[in-house]
Amino acid sequence: MRLRHIPYARELIEERSDIVLTSFQDIAGKWSEIFGNRNPIHVEIGMGKGLFLFEMARQHPECNFVGIERFDSVLVRALEKLCENPVPNVRLLCMDALKITEYFALGEVGCIYLNFSDPWPKERHAKRRLTHAQFLKRYETILAKTGELWFKTDNRVLFEFSLQSFNEYGLLFDSLSLDLHAEEPVWNVRTEYENAFGAKGCTIYRTSVGFSSRKKHTDESVKESASELL
Amino acid sequence: MRLRHIPYARELIEERSDIVLTSFQDIAGKWSEIFGNRNPIHVEIGMGKGLFLFEMARQHPECNFVGIERFDSVLVRALEKLCENPVPNVRLLCMDALKITEYFALGEVGCIYLNFSDPWPKERHAKRRLTHAQFLKRYETILAKTGELWFKTDNRVLFEFSLQSFNEYGLLFDSLSLDLHAEEPVWNVRTEYENAFGAKGCTIYRTSVGFSSRKKHTDESVKESASELL
Repeated sequence: MRLRHIPYARELIEERSDIVLTSFQDIAGKWSEIFGNRNPIHVEIGMGKGLFLFEMARQHPECNFVGIERFDSVLVRALEKLCENPVPNVRLLCMDALKITEYFALGEVGCIYLNFSDPWPKERHAKRRLTHAQFLKRYETILAKTGELWFKTDNRVLFEFSLQSFNEYGLLFDSLSLDLHAEEPVWNVRTEYENAFGAKGCTIYRTSVGFSSRKKHTDESVKESASELL
Repeated sequence: MRLRHIPYARELIEERSDIVLTSFQDIAGKWSEIFGNRNPIHVEIGMGKGLFLFEMARQHPECNFVGIERFDSVLVRALEKLCENPVPNVRLLCMDALKITEYFALGEVGCIYLNFSDPWPKERHAKRRLTHAQFLKRYETILAKTGELWFKTDNRVLFEFSLQSFNEYGLLFDSLSLDLHAEEPVWNVRTEYENAFGAKGCTIYRTSVGFSSRKKHTDESVKESASELL
């Protein structure tokens, strides 16, 4: 997404601290408190303007949704939409995905969504791709044992990389599609980007992966790996 | 491939028993004897007219190639080409892939190729797809520990199924491509079908998978599984 400096971003974000969590201390393990219920927590990393997140939250009032975005100037666009059309089961976080284990406790998350993530096409930037093993390790830490990662992209090379990365990490594919819009499932919620690019006939790739198949996914190893990451 | 009854097929096949192995007794474990050297054995299942197999054999005189085809009437087309342009490191077998463990010994094969296999699009025929677990089990039995399966197809739904099947079976992807002709690797040898359909701009999907990552791939378990299959 194009980044523009928005001078009032920080101000608006601080004003709406009921929606955007800016004080990060001790958030991990407190999400039920924050939402005021014990519903499952779903997280979108890189939510852009939030169309997907808000629609998911409307369709699934039985879940809580947290949108993560690295840039103030992008997050504020989602925040403005949310102020116009409030959705009670949504909160936003401005943070870097690398630090995700600081904000969610072991097994606290039910589902993670990655939609049209930055492909980082240069080989030397492969580690920055959100489906790289260094991120999968973090997701595994915060996901419940039955937790899932949902991933879609129109970037072929990123999808090739991601399938290999998931496979190598020992994750099990589910509902893999190499042309999501060819027979679009009823449960698919489109992002802004997907509406624009899907309409142009671009191929959209999609899969979810489960972490429960990982042999090493014992409480012990996840705790160990969590302490490494912090 | 369109099947036509070719009246002289059986006759020609029997005439060229130096190329087409028709007497199946005790072939398993005897491939080095048949080829007269100890070079690795590569097998293509469903070779069609054999363009891929013969070109691979020409490019790799350090390996032996066995082409398998279920139908006499298809195999005879490949045989005719081979009679016109002999390739010393090629043999043909007319058989059903389900019986592959009867013709190759444990670990006797270095590589298996599946090119544009029948997609068996109906869900109730899924078991017949050559990438179904019932076949992977057989391939695992005859492949060496470092053995590989190479797979390409232009059928999206078959490729989706196959990726999930490989992933579930615990196989590791290598050189996965969702558009093989976009940046065609120098090592890619095209089949007849690929030439025709690739030229029309059809997307070709490709991956290889290694079996060495399988935890259960011990001599003991492979022997057990082999005895089940026979």
